[in-house]
Amino acid sequence: METDSMNIVHALKKVLSEQQVSANQSVRELHGRDESYHRESLPDLVVFPETTKQVSEIVNLANKFKVPLVPFGLGTSLEGHVIPYEHGITIDFSRMNKIVEVREKDFLVRVQPGVTRTQLNKELKKYGLFFSVDPGADATLGGMAATNASGTTSVKYGVMRDQVRDLEVVLADRSIIHTGNLAAKSSSGYHLNGLFVGSEGTLGIFTELTLRVYGIPEHIMAARASFPSLNDAVEAVVSILQSGVPIARVELVDENSIRQVNLYSETSYSETPTLFLEFHGNEAGLKQDIEFTTEIVEEHFCLDIQFETENATSNRLWEARHNLAYAFIHGHPGKKMMVTDVCLPISKLSGAISHAREAVDSLGLTGGILGHVGDGNYHVLLMIDMSNPEEIKRAEQLNEKIVLYALEQGGTCTGEHGVGVGKQKYQQKEHGLALVVMEKIKKALDPDNLFNPNKILNKNERV
Amino acid sequence: METDSMNIVHALKKVLSEQQVSANQSVRELHGRDESYHRESLPDLVVFPETTKQVSEIVNLANKFKVPLVPFGLGTSLEGHVIPYEHGITIDFSRMNKIVEVREKDFLVRVQPGVTRTQLNKELKKYGLFFSVDPGADATLGGMAATNASGTTSVKYGVMRDQVRDLEVVLADRSIIHTGNLAAKSSSGYHLNGLFVGSEGTLGIFTELTLRVYGIPEHIMAARASFPSLNDAVEAVVSILQSGVPIARVELVDENSIRQVNLYSETSYSETPTLFLEFHGNEAGLKQDIEFTTEIVEEHFCLDIQFETENATSNRLWEARHNLAYAFIHGHPGKKMMVTDVCLPISKLSGAISHAREAVDSLGLTGGILGHVGDGNYHVLLMIDMSNPEEIKRAEQLNEKIVLYALEQGGTCTGEHGVGVGKQKYQQKEHGLALVVMEKIKKALDPDNLFNPNKILNKNERV
Repeated sequence: METDSMNIVHALKKVLSEQQVSANQSVRELHGRDESYHRESLPDLVVFPETTKQVSEIVNLANKFKVPLVPFGLGTSLEGHVIPYEHGITIDFSRMNKIVEVREKDFLVRVQPGVTRTQLNKELKKYGLFFSVDPGADATLGGMAATNASGTTSVKYGVMRDQVRDLEVVLADRSIIHTGNLAAKSSSGYHLNGLFVGSEGTLGIFTELTLRVYGIPEHIMAARASFPSLNDAVEAVVSILQSGVPIARVELVDENSIRQVNLYSETSYSETPTLFLEFHGNEAGLKQDIEFTTEIVEEHFCLDIQFETENATSNRLWEARHNLAYAFIHGHPGKKMMVTDVCLPISKLSGAISHAREAVDSLGLTGGILGHVGDGNYHVLLMIDMSNPEEIKRAEQLNEKIVLYALEQGGTCTGEHGVGVGKQKYQQKEHGLALVVMEKIKKALDPDNLFNPNKILNKNERV
Repeated sequence: METDSMNIVHALKKVLSEQQVSANQSVRELHGRDESYHRESLPDLVVFPETTKQVSEIVNLANKFKVPLVPFGLGTSLEGHVIPYEHGITIDFSRMNKIVEVREKDFLVRVQPGVTRTQLNKELKKYGLFFSVDPGADATLGGMAATNASGTTSVKYGVMRDQVRDLEVVLADRSIIHTGNLAAKSSSGYHLNGLFVGSEGTLGIFTELTLRVYGIPEHIMAARASFPSLNDAVEAVVSILQSGVPIARVELVDENSIRQVNLYSETSYSETPTLFLEFHGNEAGLKQDIEFTTEIVEEHFCLDIQFETENATSNRLWEARHNLAYAFIHGHPGKKMMVTDVCLPISKLSGAISHAREAVDSLGLTGGILGHVGDGNYHVLLMIDMSNPEEIKRAEQLNEKIVLYALEQGGTCTGEHGVGVGKQKYQQKEHGLALVVMEKIKKALDPDNLFNPNKILNKNERV
């Protein structure tokens, strides 16, 4: 496609400026990987649009030259979503990073897809508001919508899909649609918001998002509770949920992970299975919630519970939790990260984590177990030596064991990271005939398979 | 289709028993209307399946004979969803009304589509659980999922779509799929749960639902606050939401509606614009929420606020609110009900309600204004003399004025009742090119247009 490539560059430069089109090797390399172990593959070109109209023009040209398109935020994906295995053009949204409108009274914000979560929260703070979804990484909001990201606060505030009121989307036929509206609820037409969120760039390209935001809670209280075993910690979470205490965050971190945290963040948390908790509410209500929670964790053999009353200490706690993945990366130079991501009905979580722990040990791997246990979502975080095929194989065996266990219990292969290329082989097993429906939708909306081709749906590799 | 009709009856009786197939006139009449003003139209046949397999067999025969299918719960729809304007077969789900499984620890319940909301709540009470969506009418859960119903508690617990974890669906090609799983969240594949909820029988027929349920709150407090004007009441709600008080219900009822309530329910509530409120939480937290709310409503010129501490009084309050539609029907014998159903961003609600009040008066109509104002959703409830074409015309003018105002403000033509036939003409205006995406999805999944044909999507009538 040497000549074609020249032609499309020529055509792109008619609708974009010189600086917005790059075939530079180092730029291409930056867009050929994500934060995971998935192998690299470079785009032929990287473009940097500044407007929705420019995105639509790019789609038009991609159509004309039959060139694949992959949207790209900051490359924090964990299953190879943004890696252009079919090459073609990567659309980098770093120049579309404006917060367009804060509708304070409506608890809504309108942003371009390249805005990051921390950038948004910095702005919202001026209004006493915050954006709730917190996947750890400082991802772009466009990327978070594309994978239906979630994280530490989802147990209370919901996942990315719950926050999206409207998306502006460029379709494969280059038309520009809006998938929703500004109302808090609607029963009008098919739920396109929900369909496009989590579609990983395979159905359309997001050019603007209208998101729900929340008032910063009147009072916030953080806590750390350590337990003699992982199982005790998980059962304590199940009991807290049963009790109806409206917990805002509840994170499990195992002893391995706490060790990495202590090394990386220079903390000295006790190296036992630990829950990091957070409560939001009014002062009197919080006090009662905390008393009740303390009783519950003590019934589950809690070794120690510490409440962080100072804002700074509490922030340090969550910063340590959020830096966990980076702590592992930092502690294992030269290795690559593989993270499992299953989610199960809460009654099956304790069994699943025991099973995972045994599988990690029996495969001779080392890794941390952590997760958003209030949602039934946990991760095994492994650092892999990519020059050792046998180690890669064992890590993949572990991932498969964990996924199959979750599917047997009515769970899902991915709670929040998405399918990308890493979870494709489990789609048939998880969705059965529903996968045919997904394929029909893809075919109807992107008949030439130009939008992030062969992600999510791929018939070649199946378990 | 006389002969075809005989043939299909013959074929149906091979897969269903004698009692499960009816061409009886009075049975057909019961399935030819809903609770609204939309004109009647009878199905040719009504079938009463008992299993998913039987539903799949019915779809198979409908395909073979090219006969339209309309699923039917209890006929409580308000926009003609269940009326078979193309005739064919109505599938009545009254024999599929079992609560299959209560997964107490997972806060999940599995039900057949014919189970009603009150039937479910009666069972759940034994476990200390409740199902949150409360549209007033005792609708079936299948019907509620089909229209993405919501109601009084949605401001806290969300709409029907937020509760659906999994649907078993029979598709037009008679295959049986599951749209989700039992995990609290998932990023695996396209979000078919969200797509099928609200699809009004046009994409598939639901044969089983897995729904999220909640623990009955530790403490519940109800209140009634009356205001000198509708505007003051609405502005009070906006301030309560701004304040971050986690209100569980907040219903506006205007003076006309309170009058109907008093007549029908033999209550003596003061006949001024009133908010019905409810708070869920722990005792200490509630106390603080209530104090704060009282301060807020007083700033908005509240005439009187009464807290209902007795469970019985509080139940009577909500029963009165729920019976409001029936109170209007009872108070206007021989007339039919038309209810507007727009939803707007909360900052636009007060203006919208003032506009609606003026429009009602200037068109010389009488009706009540009420609604789930915490969501920005309100209704004008009109009783129409269907023998008076001029009155019908004025009512339709009102509906159109209200819808167009809502759309201009970024709202939706239907917050919770759905499109059916009543809101079809606004789909193009509301969705623009996104309607093409919906049409493509319909075409991909139901190429012969046999599933509730010409509902939601209909090109013939557009504003």
